[in-house]
Amino acid sequence: MQIAFQGQIVIVGGGAIGCAVIPLLLRHLRGADGEPPRIDIITADERGAAVARQHGLGFTVQPLTRDNYVGVLEPRLRAGDLLLNLSVDVSSIDLVRLCHRLDALYVDTCIEPWAGGYYDAEVPIAERTNYALRRQALALRDELGAGPTAVLAHGANPGLISHFAKQALLDAAAAAGLDAPVPDGRAGWAALAQRLGVAVVHCAEHDSQRGTTPKAIGEFVNTWSVDGFISEGLQPAELGWGTHERALPADAHTHADADAPAIFLLRPGAGTRVRTWTPKAGPIAGHLITHNEAISLADYLTVRDAAGRAVYRPTVHYAYHPCSDAILSLHELAGRGWQAQPRQRILLDEALPDGHDELGALLMYGEDRVYWYGTTLDVAAARRLAPHNNATSLQVAAGVLGAVVWAITQPRAGLVEAEDMDHAQVLATARPYLGELAGFHGRWNPLTDRYHGMPRPAGESDAPWQLAHFLLP
Amino acid sequence: MQIAFQGQIVIVGGGAIGCAVIPLLLRHLRGADGEPPRIDIITADERGAAVARQHGLGFTVQPLTRDNYVGVLEPRLRAGDLLLNLSVDVSSIDLVRLCHRLDALYVDTCIEPWAGGYYDAEVPIAERTNYALRRQALALRDELGAGPTAVLAHGANPGLISHFAKQALLDAAAAAGLDAPVPDGRAGWAALAQRLGVAVVHCAEHDSQRGTTPKAIGEFVNTWSVDGFISEGLQPAELGWGTHERALPADAHTHADADAPAIFLLRPGAGTRVRTWTPKAGPIAGHLITHNEAISLADYLTVRDAAGRAVYRPTVHYAYHPCSDAILSLHELAGRGWQAQPRQRILLDEALPDGHDELGALLMYGEDRVYWYGTTLDVAAARRLAPHNNATSLQVAAGVLGAVVWAITQPRAGLVEAEDMDHAQVLATARPYLGELAGFHGRWNPLTDRYHGMPRPAGESDAPWQLAHFLLP
Ligand SMILES: NC(=O)c1ccc[n+]([C@@H]2O[C@H](COP(=O)([O-])OP(=O)(O)OC[C@H]3O[C@@H](n4cnc5c(N)ncnc54)[C@H](O)[C@@H]3O)[C@@H](O)[C@H]2O)c1
Ligand SMILES: NC(=O)c1ccc[n+]([C@@H]2O[C@H](COP(=O)([O-])OP(=O)(O)OC[C@H]3O[C@@H](n4cnc5c(N)ncnc54)[C@H](O)[C@@H]3O)[C@@H](O)[C@H]2O)c1
Repeated sequence: MQIAFQGQIVIVGGGAIGCAVIPLLLRHLRGADGEPPRIDIITADERGAAVARQHGLGFTVQPLTRDNYVGVLEPRLRAGDLLLNLSVDVSSIDLVRLCHRLDALYVDTCIEPWAGGYYDAEVPIAERTNYALRRQALALRDELGAGPTAVLAHGANPGLISHFAKQALLDAAAAAGLDAPVPDGRAGWAALAQRLGVAVVHCAEHDSQRGTTPKAIGEFVNTWSVDGFISEGLQPAELGWGTHERALPADAHTHADADAPAIFLLRPGAGTRVRTWTPKAGPIAGHLITHNEAISLADYLTVRDAAGRAVYRPTVHYAYHPCSDAILSLHELAGRGWQAQPRQRILLDEALPDGHDELGALLMYGEDRVYWYGTTLDVAAARRLAPHNNATSLQVAAGVLGAVVWAITQPRAGLVEAEDMDHAQVLATARPYLGELAGFHGRWNPLTDRYHGMPRPAGESDAPWQLAHFLLP
Repeated sequence: MQIAFQGQIVIVGGGAIGCAVIPLLLRHLRGADGEPPRIDIITADERGAAVARQHGLGFTVQPLTRDNYVGVLEPRLRAGDLLLNLSVDVSSIDLVRLCHRLDALYVDTCIEPWAGGYYDAEVPIAERTNYALRRQALALRDELGAGPTAVLAHGANPGLISHFAKQALLDAAAAAGLDAPVPDGRAGWAALAQRLGVAVVHCAEHDSQRGTTPKAIGEFVNTWSVDGFISEGLQPAELGWGTHERALPADAHTHADADAPAIFLLRPGAGTRVRTWTPKAGPIAGHLITHNEAISLADYLTVRDAAGRAVYRPTVHYAYHPCSDAILSLHELAGRGWQAQPRQRILLDEALPDGHDELGALLMYGEDRVYWYGTTLDVAAARRLAPHNNATSLQVAAGVLGAVVWAITQPRAGLVEAEDMDHAQVLATARPYLGELAGFHGRWNPLTDRYHGMPRPAGESDAPWQLAHFLLP
């Protein structure tokens, strides 16, 4: 597949994902001259310099700040160009605003604040959640209205996961014998989820990648951004809150807007574990890390009555089993009082070929029905498909490619989230890089294989899909 | 050192610890003929058969049960012999009773029930705690009175850890300039702890051992008994409860006897993490696994007023950072709803030489004073000291040797716990196998390096040594 694109591309960030997307962009975009687009990287350090050199790309080390970003980016962006934000610590909102003014396309894999924004103790914690960041983005959408397309929060998750969820809804409906046409908008998708009785949706991920060298003491090892993972891991655990839930966890906080689709728990997601399920690994423990999709998807799938009250919404959240070295890194991080380790390492060239990443939308419904739809990709396959990648980065890069192509082909859509996009179109673009893209049915709920050596807490519900049953001590 | 011992030895269990102690017993015990004692192993499977053959020991595969143990053991034990229980799933109480009747010495590294005793949902959970098991042992002690020595719960921890705690109290008192002679009994040790203001005592352990092969999916890897670790890890987290504590955790349970020195939390210790501190590793996350020493030491160090009310007691518990593969095994176990993995592996011959185990008593007092006294042993040193060992097993074997020598030299002491023994004598016996046995002062409390990105829970105390500050989410 090749897509016509006349503009130039500025990528902010030259880390794991920055490098991962480069071969895909160079392969699939073509200017009027038949040449791939010119790509410039603006970044904060030397990471990615070798990859940029190898492909003849521009590479400038110039960390963006609140004060310099306009000066650095404006000279580099003309109308019709694309700004791709693959950094950490750079405000998505401010870049969207800039691109709107310059009439440039924008793609981001999250919604991030400027450096320190997640931790600023002066700002109430509720205003530092992903719920709050997304509210800012939606307010900006309404303020800016029509204009150049800006896709927010579109990598693998957030991003592809919302399209997986839609495909999962279609597949599960078909399997249940529901005669359900493909919905043509938000209300239709929400109604379908309600009809199926989907109580919980996990973004269920199991990463089995490992390297040749074990994690050292004082080192955080991961398969993608260590800074990014620590940032989101230290944010409060946050989730879309389903209408079937009977009890808020003890440390749960709700938002001032009583209609907010999300809650958060007053503890880092990196220290909050839930049980989940993936097809290859079976029942596993994942970390309940806050992610934009938990809120956007829960919001998208909400059914309201005539008075506007939410009458149906699934619980939605991330349940992330990172690679072994990252689990050990999180354990060490907790012991350090959540102060980042002095050293970090991303498993890339040294990743062993057999490690894989299973990432999918897990629908849970009925008594014990689970249906997972998503991507399973191993390192060997990722390397065959594109250089500079491990399994995780290529899944993310596939999502970025999907968003870039969507933005180029729908250039006047204004600010959009994954749920606003046509899932089949995006998946068609991303699919070649997703290894096995498939769905799996299972029978499981967090009570079916529950530990019986200990009495259940007083007052605990017997309904299978309550958050309390998923949460691990 | 060689000790005269005329009897024979029956070891129940031929696992990691069973094999680990054999070279030490053969080296340090001598009969009237100058020969090492005859050793017979009674066990449940072939583990240990090669080691037994190598040393010319008896080896019988005959799993003990409530129904057969008398028939199996009685013919093998004469007065003056020694029964060493290094198995899992065999009732310590029943074996003590048998040895009393046969006038044989007894040494155990824990207080265990028969198989299934920890999980029997018919028995109230409070009666399955280590507190309850210890109560049974103390009742037996009072019932049997004088008689052959039976040392309960004496490996490294429980066991040596109580002697480390006494040495730590002496060292910390000296460092604080307290003019404190060595106490000559329980009341004296408790008074010393109170005078120092010790609020919390951790059994603080950091195991850095690893093997050549990474843990596989579906495999539990540890440096000692996998069965033993899973058993204690699935018991409720349990701890000696200090008089300085201001609030019980939400899921805390107290005992019917309001004077009980311990509480337990209604969740597996394997899923309960606390912050702790060891000299080499610094601040780390450990698992709050129930152990006998948490209760016996808290009880031992309790100061009561004239009316018998506890006016001083430290909080005491285990804070265990097992080896990396065991952390990953626990994570997987949690995901499996705490159902044991199908395969297990103990890191022994394949343990890399540089891994070590730091195990000590960590006294916490004043504003931010910590003093850790204990053993740091690496695999290479362990191998130089004795065959069939890694660092952990030799620390345990050293404790077993200490208990065996104590029992032989004090053969009519009846049932005793570690705290009843002379700590200097036991440490002198164990010392050659403990690598670096030393104390380290530090300044740390769980608030000094606390994470500030999140507001503190309402009503949380500012006093540094509250359990709430140690507990990790
Ligand atoms: N949606 C998804 O599926 C998904 C998945 C993985 C990563 N991500 C996000 O993608 C982003 C990049 O991830 P990664 O794994 O490549 O991270 P990385 O840590 O490997 O690299 C981050 C890059 O950002 C650059 N950077 C940092 N501060 C900067 C600044 N002030 N100005 C300009 N550049 C700056 C760094 O120099 C580095 O090149 C992160 O925000 C991450 O959260 C999203
Ligand atoms: N206090 C301490 O410091 C400490 C430290 C480590 C282990 N331990 C305890 O020591 C014991 C042995 O530990 P390990 O690491 O050698 O365990 P292991 O799992 O390596 O071996 C256990 C042994 O017990 C045998 N066994 C199991 N059921 C039996 C039965 N019914 N009858 C007879 N034998 C039976 C098995 O065959 C095996 O040889 C455990 O109870 C463990 O908790 C104490």
